[in-house]
Amino acid sequence: MVDACGKCENCLAGLEQYCSGGRTLTYNSIGRDGKRTDGGYSQHIVVDERFVVRIPESVALANAAPLLCAGITMYSPLRHWKAGPGSKVAIIGFGGLGHVGVQMAKAMGAQTTVLDLSPEKRDDALRLGAEDFRLSTEPETFTSLDSAFDLVISTVPIYVGLDRYLGLLARDGVYVNLAVPAQPLSISATTLLTNRRSIAGTRSGGIAETQEMLDFCAEHGISAEVEVIHADGIDDAYRRLLAGNVRFRFVIDNTTL
Amino acid sequence: MVDACGKCENCLAGLEQYCSGGRTLTYNSIGRDGKRTDGGYSQHIVVDERFVVRIPESVALANAAPLLCAGITMYSPLRHWKAGPGSKVAIIGFGGLGHVGVQMAKAMGAQTTVLDLSPEKRDDALRLGAEDFRLSTEPETFTSLDSAFDLVISTVPIYVGLDRYLGLLARDGVYVNLAVPAQPLSISATTLLTNRRSIAGTRSGGIAETQEMLDFCAEHGISAEVEVIHADGIDDAYRRLLAGNVRFRFVIDNTTL
Repeated sequence: MVDACGKCENCLAGLEQYCSGGRTLTYNSIGRDGKRTDGGYSQHIVVDERFVVRIPESVALANAAPLLCAGITMYSPLRHWKAGPGSKVAIIGFGGLGHVGVQMAKAMGAQTTVLDLSPEKRDDALRLGAEDFRLSTEPETFTSLDSAFDLVISTVPIYVGLDRYLGLLARDGVYVNLAVPAQPLSISATTLLTNRRSIAGTRSGGIAETQEMLDFCAEHGISAEVEVIHADGIDDAYRRLLAGNVRFRFVIDNTTL
Repeated sequence: MVDACGKCENCLAGLEQYCSGGRTLTYNSIGRDGKRTDGGYSQHIVVDERFVVRIPESVALANAAPLLCAGITMYSPLRHWKAGPGSKVAIIGFGGLGHVGVQMAKAMGAQTTVLDLSPEKRDDALRLGAEDFRLSTEPETFTSLDSAFDLVISTVPIYVGLDRYLGLLARDGVYVNLAVPAQPLSISATTLLTNRRSIAGTRSGGIAETQEMLDFCAEHGISAEVEVIHADGIDDAYRRLLAGNVRFRFVIDNTTL
């Protein structure tokens, strides 16, 4: 996000991601000058100073890069729905978003469980702060964790059957959906009214909260685990990404552009 | 509701409607004695004293009767999601639930808008406290009220296209679904993440809150508008109910049983 109206109720609340006047994204968005934005794969980019954040010295630039999307996308809902001491959080999917979210939830003091398809993710999940790791392919996961969580954040970018995940929510629990699949989300009204459950959407974070997130990561030694590639390795990296073969984000070294 | 386990976390919080040990409903439920419950259409009914509420003197029994279902079903979400001064509430459907909900929302200090299919509902809606009445059959209703409400409560008992109703929610707004239609609820992930919207379910209220609701109704002169019928008029009333022809609840005079 490189611009927003600055005048609507949401911008004035520091929540530019919900700008009702139309925010401008870094890529493929129309800016105030009427021109299409071309993204940040460059040595320089000109943006309004209100949309610049400070990377703390102690976080390497390569590891900070994914925090500006995956990081804030996890941090904002964890804060908004009050992950902290005494709360139980489940993170669905242990990839670019999930591996940062687990570190943040732990640093906030929540008890965190990771659900993923791949048993190979277990060791990394536990190493980065999960108290438990469960396979989403096992029906037993959903029966034994019925009504167990205050907050469930799904990072899975494709359509998943929501009802079994909603069943994980304790009373007044919230399921936060980060995915935007092509088909609509489908949920059972009965599963929703049991335990007064909610399902919510969230969109990244505001600029002030993004700075807060960066400072929080620096303070707690949190960063994204990345594989740095050169510009001429993008095609290979993209093929590996589609195959799910990346730990956990590719970062392009801009000096090789 | 005539019984609940009394021991689970939800019962201990006074929220017996979410009892995880299995609550007992008045009708067609299995009680602690293993027998099926037969309902309350009788001169007497024996229940645990923890499930008895006091009807305030100033509320006529006939008008109080629907409060014990429709009333608490509206009161609980209005309280839980903090309807009050400065908040904007929309109530979808102006029938047995809606006409009580409007009175409550007004008494709590919220600004309330009613949406209904029938223009004939307008006068009653405004008389009972709505500041505005809009037709849900008019597309203009949804464009002009885009992002206008903090809380939208749908009392419509059938399946409705949710996305246009979700679009009524302002930032951090909550859509409360009271309906349990046969088909799943279908929602767009994009509509949900815009404004950080939520959709939630809720189930009636706990016993302490039901008493609080009755006392609130007495204090504010709120009650259900009813047509009292004799037991031998049930078949006729049921036909009228199916045709949507009741203002706003039928109540059976039990002395005629």
